[in-house]
Amino acid sequence: MKVHRIPEATVMRLSIYSRYLNQLLDEGVETISSGEIAKGVGVGSAQVRKDLAYFGEFGTRGVGYNVKELFGHLMKILGLDKKWKVIIIGAGKLGSALALYQGFKDRGFAVSAILDANKERIGQKLSNVEIEPLELMQQRIQENNIKLGVVTVPAQSAQDVTDKLIAAGVKAILNFSPQVLRVPSGIILRNVDLSVNMEVLSFNLALKNEESFN
Amino acid sequence: MKVHRIPEATVMRLSIYSRYLNQLLDEGVETISSGEIAKGVGVGSAQVRKDLAYFGEFGTRGVGYNVKELFGHLMKILGLDKKWKVIIIGAGKLGSALALYQGFKDRGFAVSAILDANKERIGQKLSNVEIEPLELMQQRIQENNIKLGVVTVPAQSAQDVTDKLIAAGVKAILNFSPQVLRVPSGIILRNVDLSVNMEVLSFNLALKNEESFN
Repeated sequence: MKVHRIPEATVMRLSIYSRYLNQLLDEGVETISSGEIAKGVGVGSAQVRKDLAYFGEFGTRGVGYNVKELFGHLMKILGLDKKWKVIIIGAGKLGSALALYQGFKDRGFAVSAILDANKERIGQKLSNVEIEPLELMQQRIQENNIKLGVVTVPAQSAQDVTDKLIAAGVKAILNFSPQVLRVPSGIILRNVDLSVNMEVLSFNLALKNEESFN
Repeated sequence: MKVHRIPEATVMRLSIYSRYLNQLLDEGVETISSGEIAKGVGVGSAQVRKDLAYFGEFGTRGVGYNVKELFGHLMKILGLDKKWKVIIIGAGKLGSALALYQGFKDRGFAVSAILDANKERIGQKLSNVEIEPLELMQQRIQENNIKLGVVTVPAQSAQDVTDKLIAAGVKAILNFSPQVLRVPSGIILRNVDLSVNMEVLSFNLALKNEESFN
């Protein structure tokens, strides 16, 4: 199965489909067509079929997909058939919000450690996890076998923290800092720029309304 | 110019291109090819050309794009040739992080008001903006002519808050709550699920490594 070239946009949609299927499962729905999935999540049905086709044939022509089976497949594809331990570096407002983020827990991501350079934050608790000093990074990563790191430190310390995460064994990094990070090949890096989401809104507002609001 | 059917993924890439061009401007670069843009941001050059072609012909064959001109075009397309005022509802950890988020300021989004239901938060300041009670929503939106709202309240109050934002004149909503929101047609809604980003990582890790880490 050649799945290495899946577009990122497809992966993000699979994530969204899986949430919708989970909701349907809760409601006791047993089968669903690609058209119904499309309608439920707000994308075209040809897109849904194309996205699912990357991973082989799930559905039965004329019957549709078995909801439970398709949900299971998607969760496995997304790597969510198991729990992932996560380390967060930076216990500022964003790091703290992420440590408490219910959406992570719901999908099997467990924040196992949260570290900060600020001595005043050390010892405070976020949910069940105590904020600890940066010096414990290697120890926490290795004893918990953590592969996922979240970077929410200021720009000037982001590269240093990233280098240390990778040296300690982290394989994938979610970067919320504005710093452009360099990582060795083989390490998965994803930059999250929250203002991109805001710009999708301003783009649409600007389209809809040429006259100035201000 | 038919720009109403631009895929969202394209809009997000335009946002990324514009940041890269801004960086090049700072470095004094005057012209750039689509191939160089592609390399700089990590997407295919055919994709860059396709994305830019939605908006007409910017470049000169054999010469490439004038960086300053293309940057200006992209910012205008994204609606970022003017400042946008934003209201944040919910001054919890995530709402506070967003209120202080430098990435918004850098792109012309100004947080003009932040409201919370929690009396203990009222009067505290985030950057220059004081947290105020929810009751001031309509007044703040109307006196500042705010069109952009950010919802970071718990799921159970998200729909109510959204209805009130829209009634007061907000036209576009960025929803960070896990609640599926209903909005009237004509209102732009964008849901941000931070765990989708994490799942792009787990997908790639699962691909790379079939054996269990745990």
